Amino acid sequence: MASRSTQILEAAARVIARRGVRGLRVEELAAEAGVSTALIYYHFKDRTGVLRRTLEFISDRAERYTTDRHPDDPPLTPRDELARTLLLELQDTTEVRENSTAWGELRASAVFDEVLREDLARATLEWVQEVAALLGRVRPMAPASAHAAAAERLTALLEGLSMRWLSGATTIPHARELMHGAITAELDALGQS
Amino acid sequence: MASRSTQILEAAARVIARRGVRGLRVEELAAEAGVSTALIYYHFKDRTGVLRRTLEFISDRAERYTTDRHPDDPPLTPRDELARTLLLELQDTTEVRENSTAWGELRASAVFDEVLREDLARATLEWVQEVAALLGRVRPMAPASAHAAAAERLTALLEGLSMRWLSGATTIPHARELMHGAITAELDALGQS
Repeated sequence: MASRSTQILEAAARVIARRGVRGLRVEELAAEAGVSTALIYYHFKDRTGVLRRTLEFISDRAERYTTDRHPDDPPLTPRDELARTLLLELQDTTEVRENSTAWGELRASAVFDEVLREDLARATLEWVQEVAALLGRVRPMAPASAHAAAAERLTALLEGLSMRWLSGATTIPHARELMHGAITAELDALGQS
Repeated sequence: MASRSTQILEAAARVIARRGVRGLRVEELAAEAGVSTALIYYHFKDRTGVLRRTLEFISDRAERYTTDRHPDDPPLTPRDELARTLLLELQDTTEVRENSTAWGELRASAVFDEVLREDLARATLEWVQEVAALLGRVRPMAPASAHAAAAERLTALLEGLSMRWLSGATTIPHARELMHGAITAELDALGQS
């Protein structure tokens, strides 16, 4: 069973995905999570505390759904693991849609409100480093700075494509095809090593 | 001198860039533009009309600042023109910052509100087609479908990088460097023709 704070964070992700960061009020969150506002203040101090921990929560959740595999599954090649990690962010499931919507909202709100910027920059960096490490396993002879730059591009492209998908400007199959093309182009640019 | 409706649209872009789409109220827009609310309703019918025309206005303005050149400037190679068109969206000027913030807000608001989706999809398509045409001049032997896919990726990456810049997760020089790398990788993938 989920702990009370996880239950609150799951509800926060749902509320943000439904109405945006600016639609998140502690009273409404309490109703959605089925807890008292006092309990929310106890666990998270204030609304900013809720937003910070929700950012962490959705980053961890994305990490999980892009890397979890059944123990009996055959091992993946580094290239398949790279493709899988990126493409599993482009799935039309409730969880991914909610996660991507909330992430886009937290990103967009940081344009206006400085309070989340540091946490968001850190979460972005961790994601970039994870993808850079995978690129390093596929192209071990390329310099680390080239892995990092390619990882920044692939993750920024993924953010851009997710927003196009969520805003109805493209479809999931098309976004996945574009993402596949970007992975191929970046790996080619990193050399055949 | 700007017409009354242009004056209102300039004010709308400022208000959206300052407080977001959800912060745009017709009363506040009237105050910012120095006109009556009646005049706004006369020109744009309703708030949705204002948002639609503001989207058009910022698309046209981006088109202008990424393509305007002095008549005495020497002609650009197709490749320089491509790089210029994309990189001029990554400039730390008031106009570009305001335009990119407003574009990001309109994109983000379309996730929650269907009313702008069609206009936004059309504006995105026009932008993609413009970049695809430039790619076609640099790599005329590649198939049109490959120009289109590369243009979709480069513009989606630009949206992703702009949001990272505006939310404080990266700097303009670094975003430009990443964009340069993406242009090189895409042109290489389109062949040496």
